Amino acid sequence: MSDLSQVKALIFDVFGTVVDWRTSLINDFTAWGKKRGIDGDWTALVDGWRAVYAASMDDVRKHPERGYVILDVLHRRSLEKLVEQLGITGLDDADLHHLTMGWHRLYPWPDSVGGLTRLKTRYILSPLSNGNVALLTEMAKFAGLPWDLIMSAELFEHYKPDPETYLGAARLLCLPPEQVMMVAAHNHDLKAAQNLGLKTAFVARPTEYGPLQKYDLEAKGDWDIVAKDFGELAGRMGC
Amino acid sequence: MSDLSQVKALIFDVFGTVVDWRTSLINDFTAWGKKRGIDGDWTALVDGWRAVYAASMDDVRKHPERGYVILDVLHRRSLEKLVEQLGITGLDDADLHHLTMGWHRLYPWPDSVGGLTRLKTRYILSPLSNGNVALLTEMAKFAGLPWDLIMSAELFEHYKPDPETYLGAARLLCLPPEQVMMVAAHNHDLKAAQNLGLKTAFVARPTEYGPLQKYDLEAKGDWDIVAKDFGELAGRMGC
Repeated sequence: MSDLSQVKALIFDVFGTVVDWRTSLINDFTAWGKKRGIDGDWTALVDGWRAVYAASMDDVRKHPERGYVILDVLHRRSLEKLVEQLGITGLDDADLHHLTMGWHRLYPWPDSVGGLTRLKTRYILSPLSNGNVALLTEMAKFAGLPWDLIMSAELFEHYKPDPETYLGAARLLCLPPEQVMMVAAHNHDLKAAQNLGLKTAFVARPTEYGPLQKYDLEAKGDWDIVAKDFGELAGRMGC
Repeated sequence: MSDLSQVKALIFDVFGTVVDWRTSLINDFTAWGKKRGIDGDWTALVDGWRAVYAASMDDVRKHPERGYVILDVLHRRSLEKLVEQLGITGLDDADLHHLTMGWHRLYPWPDSVGGLTRLKTRYILSPLSNGNVALLTEMAKFAGLPWDLIMSAELFEHYKPDPETYLGAARLLCLPPEQVMMVAAHNHDLKAAQNLGLKTAFVARPTEYGPLQKYDLEAKGDWDIVAKDFGELAGRMGC
């Protein structure tokens, strides 16, 4: 078993690992659509939006000459295409902004806040998310996430799983990678972190993508910890 | 009177404004010196250390070709010269490290935590300090400072009062400068922020530099708020 006694900081993937983006957005948009009198297949919108997430970041990665683009802006661009494809009409600029800011209003999984609160007594806690700083800051206030600081891909102008993000987080914390543990519900995120020397913890979120989820149903890698939720993670880390 | 109803975030100078670095360090080093059996004029060390602070950052500013250097490293370099000048002997590498990390163990002024806690219910709160991210993060855990996020000169690779710091903070928050208020006990810090369009609040800390303090005893500028402490600041901001 891996020696975790040197770990000083835990850094967290956020979308899917800490918050339930899919249920949050579908509920938010469904209620808002009724009130606003706009009809739409909001489930299709949310699933479609997330489906183009990776490609939108790849586009930034492939075109460094255009400069880094924050996730709020990528979300807005993807949304504009999707509403057209899905035939959702009658949305003005303020509506599109409201929907885009939906990503700042996400609810945590039931165990997230309790587990983080326990872990915070002993460790430095931060997100390491592709969400931009303002998004993560507003989400933390909305959802009551007790971060010590906010680390975002934006600070490094690189999206995960680029090495600059994991190594940048360790650098800002003035810690060697092995004193930092990456927590995620996604095996590929942990793999990238592990390759750079970080410790790893997997927490399965088998309904993140809804009833038809195909990936990340279980740990697929030699992670330092595999826990069923943040409560078990806190216990395993001595909190 | 300035319209402050649009302010969304308050960003704080830290050394002197939020924490009493001088008393904290003198007490810490005096107790440590006794225990460690090392004699020294700790008050002279602390005052001398702060006296070379501005020059050490100027040196980074004047030599961009050497790259940005974080405050922990500047502190250590200054300390090595000072202990020699003051004839403090018998310090090994671990001792020098312990003293340097003293800047992570600073106590807040009596009104700081209460005022911040009230302000946090309504505003985004962050330091905007020349301290590096790890320093500010550890200090927040030590002193119980309830920041929403940690913004440091390190993120912008520029020390205050360079414009990159104030504008960088507004950019990370996705806010126009006039929706961000800089809070400081130092008139020059507020002047730099005001010149860039930020709102400003002055809180006097007339004993920051000890009994012989000469500067920043009172507000010298057209600041949006002048308050006697963080409690009054919170009240003036509607909290």
